[in-house]
Amino acid sequence: MAVQARTPWREAFGARIRSARLARGLTQEGLAETCGLHPTYIGDAERGERNVSLDNILRLAYALKVRPGELLDGLERRIPKKVP
Amino acid sequence: MAVQARTPWREAFGARIRSARLARGLTQEGLAETCGLHPTYIGDAERGERNVSLDNILRLAYALKVRPGELLDGLERRIPKKVP
Repeated sequence: MAVQARTPWREAFGARIRSARLARGLTQEGLAETCGLHPTYIGDAERGERNVSLDNILRLAYALKVRPGELLDGLERRIPKKVP
Repeated sequence: MAVQARTPWREAFGARIRSARLARGLTQEGLAETCGLHPTYIGDAERGERNVSLDNILRLAYALKVRPGELLDGLERRIPKKVP
C-alpha cells in the first residue's frame, strides 16, 4: 500500500498518535507490535502520510488506551466539505 | 472499490451513521450530496460493509454535525487486538 499525500487533517491525526505513543513511553516498534501493524505504517501515519482506515484507527486507539475521539475530534473542521 | 466484510465494529459504526443521519432528517442521497460521497457508499457504510477511511469519517461527521468520537468511541473495545 503506497504512502499517501499529507494533508493538514492527516498530519494533525498523526501528531496525536505520536503524542499519545510518547505519553505511554512506546517506540514506533512497540506500538506496531501491540496493535499488529507494521512499524513503517506507524511512521507513515505519524507523518500524516496515510488515510488510516476505521479498523486501524480503532486498533491504534485501543493500543494507546485513548478514546478514538481523542485522536479525531475537531479534525472534521479541517477537511474540505466535499471531495475535491 | 469493492464492498468489504461486515464486522461487529463496522456494523456498529454504520448504525451510528444511520442514527445520526435520521436524527437530522437526511436521506442517504441528501447525506451523500452534503459530504460529496456516493449514495451507494453511504448505504454500504451504514450496513457495515465499508472500512471507512479517516478522510471519509471526518466528512461524514462534519456533514452530520457530530464529533467523530460520537461515531467511534467504544468501538475500539470490539476489534481484535491484532490483525487476524
